[in-house]
Amino acid sequence: MSAFRHSARVYWEDTDAGGIVFYANYLKFMERARTEWLSALGFDLAQVEREHGIAFAVHRADIEYRAPARLSDRLDVGVSLIDAGRARFSVDQDVRRGDTTLVHARITLACLETEAWRPARIPAPLAERLDALRSKRL
Amino acid sequence: MSAFRHSARVYWEDTDAGGIVFYANYLKFMERARTEWLSALGFDLAQVEREHGIAFAVHRADIEYRAPARLSDRLDVGVSLIDAGRARFSVDQDVRRGDTTLVHARITLACLETEAWRPARIPAPLAERLDALRSKRL
Amino acid sequence: MSAFRHSARVYWEDTDAGGIVFYANYLKFMERARTEWLSALGFDLAQVEREHGIAFAVHRADIEYRAPARLSDRLDVGVSLIDAGRARFSVDQDVRRGDTTLVHARITLACLETEAWRPARIPAPLAERLDALRSKRL
Amino acid sequence: MSAFRHSARVYWEDTDAGGIVFYANYLKFMERARTEWLSALGFDLAQVEREHGIAFAVHRADIEYRAPARLSDRLDVGVSLIDAGRARFSVDQDVRRGDTTLVHARITLACLETEAWRPARIPAPLAERLDALRSKRL
Repeated sequence: MSAFRHSARVYWEDTDAGGIVFYANYLKFMERARTEWLSALGFDLAQVEREHGIAFAVHRADIEYRAPARLSDRLDVGVSLIDAGRARFSVDQDVRRGDTTLVHARITLACLETEAWRPARIPAPLAERLDALRSKRL
Repeated sequence: MSAFRHSARVYWEDTDAGGIVFYANYLKFMERARTEWLSALGFDLAQVEREHGIAFAVHRADIEYRAPARLSDRLDVGVSLIDAGRARFSVDQDVRRGDTTLVHARITLACLETEAWRPARIPAPLAERLDALRSKRL
Repeated sequence: MSAFRHSARVYWEDTDAGGIVFYANYLKFMERARTEWLSALGFDLAQVEREHGIAFAVHRADIEYRAPARLSDRLDVGVSLIDAGRARFSVDQDVRRGDTTLVHARITLACLETEAWRPARIPAPLAERLDALRSKRL
Repeated sequence: MSAFRHSARVYWEDTDAGGIVFYANYLKFMERARTEWLSALGFDLAQVEREHGIAFAVHRADIEYRAPARLSDRLDVGVSLIDAGRARFSVDQDVRRGDTTLVHARITLACLETEAWRPARIPAPLAERLDALRSKRL
């Protein structure tokens, strides 16, 4: 699968007293990968917010935890576009250690204008890139 | 609905540069509420782990983010048992500010023995409490 | 000592794979206590920022870690004003479990205007409250 | 200065509603750099804990916050050994963005055996590496 992939390492901050990564922290790894993916597409989130007054907020996250990651593990995190509309897009994300998928998630993000946190259209240049990506998949 | 409810306040640590609570941090609020709920049922997680060598790990989390929480907000977080089996149970959780539901989630937890992180039976006293709770709902 | 005290409980999110609270997370407990202390003095930080365009940023933190906190521990966190100037104030903070001080810190906060993050005078009503507190100590 | 340096990027998870990195989160960046530094010296912390039953806990942290980091910033974090004894060592750490030092800290770490969290001698191979490093500085 032609997913964008971003590497992450497990540090003390990520683990909990069970000796494994705390379940909320995989969402940090997944957010980092989405940020780097958008950055690789030419869209720096901080800049997009300054220029367009919009941000992307997670609207849904459906997460399956299959196996735990541990201290010092080297992970890589994938992002793969599933669907893109006028004000939303969805991605598949996985967190892998080697060939093992530890966590899989389907994430839907909504484009919001940051004044009132109301839905907004995805800025045209990004919408076009997402459209092109989606077409390539089909 | 007869949910157990636990209060939380939004501090700087919970927010992000968007001015709202970072999406992963609602999972912390929900975990705190589950811990307090089990504690109210008579099961302290640290003690359960020492005595029974088991812990509860999230297996699935399906989360819908409806509206953002902000700095200083007073939230309350609900836990409501949906289903309980031999080695798993599921809860509905919501994060509310006053009458507004900000986040809703369905969480499935698996009982694991903490040596090898393999599935284990829920310790009998807790299984009985969960069974009793579930029956009351029906 | 006439410190303001705020209670905190240790949840999974706070711990690390060493089985103890991760060292950075005590700074979260201390920030919560400072927020509640200012709130008890009549100053809600979110409101102060909206009304005065200022925020308090930590300028120095000198922290001594004496003993670890663990999962499910009930802690209480103290705040005691040490010094207050025009644009800064310092507090002593401790994190205790029962009679045991686990962490002690001296924290200096700077008042900054949030547009350019430049030093600003502490708003008069708060400056007066801090002055009164400091005098009481002397 | 011959510091070990490790890069970090600021993601949403690191920021707070002030639009800057939350003060506790610089301690995460500094911990990551210490872990990578020890790893570069040949000591993987997870492995050291398994083999020697010891871990390094922060005993003191004296931190000066000079300027804030923001979303998307590319930082680099330094570690420079200051002193090493039988059961403790101290490092200077800085967090820089380009030529600007944002945060400077002096951190003392204690070697603890992880059963009872009591002081322990630094394992000989690591003690020798730290000694060699310290001599090179003098």
